Amino acid sequence: MEVKKYMEILKLQGQSNKLIQDQVVVEHPFTIFLNQEELVTILCSPDLLKELALGFLFSENYIEDLGEIEKMEIGQGSKTINIRIKDKNRDLRDKYRGRRTITSGCGKNTSFYNIVDSKSSKKISKKMYIKPMVVVQLMKEFNNLSVLFKETGGVHSCALASTEKIIFYAEDIGRHNALDKVLGSGHLLDLDFTDKLVLSTGRISSEMLIKTGRRGIPIIISRSAPTSLAIDLAKELGITLIGFARGDKMNIYNNFPSVDF
Amino acid sequence: MEVKKYMEILKLQGQSNKLIQDQVVVEHPFTIFLNQEELVTILCSPDLLKELALGFLFSENYIEDLGEIEKMEIGQGSKTINIRIKDKNRDLRDKYRGRRTITSGCGKNTSFYNIVDSKSSKKISKKMYIKPMVVVQLMKEFNNLSVLFKETGGVHSCALASTEKIIFYAEDIGRHNALDKVLGSGHLLDLDFTDKLVLSTGRISSEMLIKTGRRGIPIIISRSAPTSLAIDLAKELGITLIGFARGDKMNIYNNFPSVDF
Repeated sequence: MEVKKYMEILKLQGQSNKLIQDQVVVEHPFTIFLNQEELVTILCSPDLLKELALGFLFSENYIEDLGEIEKMEIGQGSKTINIRIKDKNRDLRDKYRGRRTITSGCGKNTSFYNIVDSKSSKKISKKMYIKPMVVVQLMKEFNNLSVLFKETGGVHSCALASTEKIIFYAEDIGRHNALDKVLGSGHLLDLDFTDKLVLSTGRISSEMLIKTGRRGIPIIISRSAPTSLAIDLAKELGITLIGFARGDKMNIYNNFPSVDF
Repeated sequence: MEVKKYMEILKLQGQSNKLIQDQVVVEHPFTIFLNQEELVTILCSPDLLKELALGFLFSENYIEDLGEIEKMEIGQGSKTINIRIKDKNRDLRDKYRGRRTITSGCGKNTSFYNIVDSKSSKKISKKMYIKPMVVVQLMKEFNNLSVLFKETGGVHSCALASTEKIIFYAEDIGRHNALDKVLGSGHLLDLDFTDKLVLSTGRISSEMLIKTGRRGIPIIISRSAPTSLAIDLAKELGITLIGFARGDKMNIYNNFPSVDF
């Protein structure tokens, strides 16, 4: 499906105005059915839909391993996906899903506000070092890929990279979807995430950190700002968080020695 | 509560680096309890929390009238709010909540993907005209208010305005929250929304349009891009949608005659 389309708009500047055909980004409702039950409708850019669904199921802790998937089938003009899984943890998940704990100290730490997230995120075990020049180079390559943003101004980009190059790249109207798409691409190949990096154009909130942490990815880099809670979680999980990575500038929020000068 | 705080960061530029105290935007988990049941945890900037909760309940169709609220009480260091409502529509809402329809033509049109949204949005009955110079002037005033964005780069802004001036203004880490905050501010005063405008810094997705439509607000303006689905919904609801409003430029996506030259 097309991720953009032309629509007629009235373009104004000062006293002048003209009707033109302009490109706008497509927003597509995409519904996941899990074991024949309607799970969620994600509003997204309609590409990499299988990857998006897979990334979402891992992110939300419905599955932990690709082997749990028995069937994935896109249906109804890409409006739905039917997924069958071996749902061994269903009772536990149903118990905690949507139940947010607001008390501190729910198990291992104080920044998590959801029991499922807290239990399923793991501290980074393999420390990874990165040179600032590598960050500059990767972000340059990353920005050059963002064609849809240049055309429509309506999307966020995300990439999964090694220290050498970008491996997967995705754009979406939602920054969480873009992240789930590149993570889902990795899951499809059963990729080792523990020596990879996440690059994003969007702000880094706690949810972005939790998605990254669930895969054991040691470094996340954005051209935008992080929130305080994302920084707290990064410290707890040992993930190196870099923000405002623009040109040869960047802010490093934790793990200062991980950046190798 | 503070919406920003200082944290120690390592600031890099080219070969130089220094440890500094920098301002980051606070992300705050805020849980709404409705009639003693845990409803949702919103990740937000911790100000205007009562307005946020109220705006959210209207947006999600839990209430239709301020008179339905019997009690609102912020608790636990602003981490929770307890709200009691006369829950007359509960059965209907429980039936449809989270049930997204993916078939077309669910009642009145094809753009809505949720039955509750479709039933509770109303077509604009009172047409409103606006002069481009008014848009330029309001957006200038709006941009000048955005102090937290200038300090942290981590928030979106939203305002509720008349054609004369900005009435309510809010900033939040989430653009949906910022919108719910200004709408909630309006609900608290039982404001007539049908001659007001929404201003936003963020992208206009279908959800932003639905929130606006639910209040009968005839015009929404953003400095960013809209999605295709937001434009479709704007056309169906009769809401004038203006995007990329920057300086003396703007794009008008529908209702072309509503802009009065």
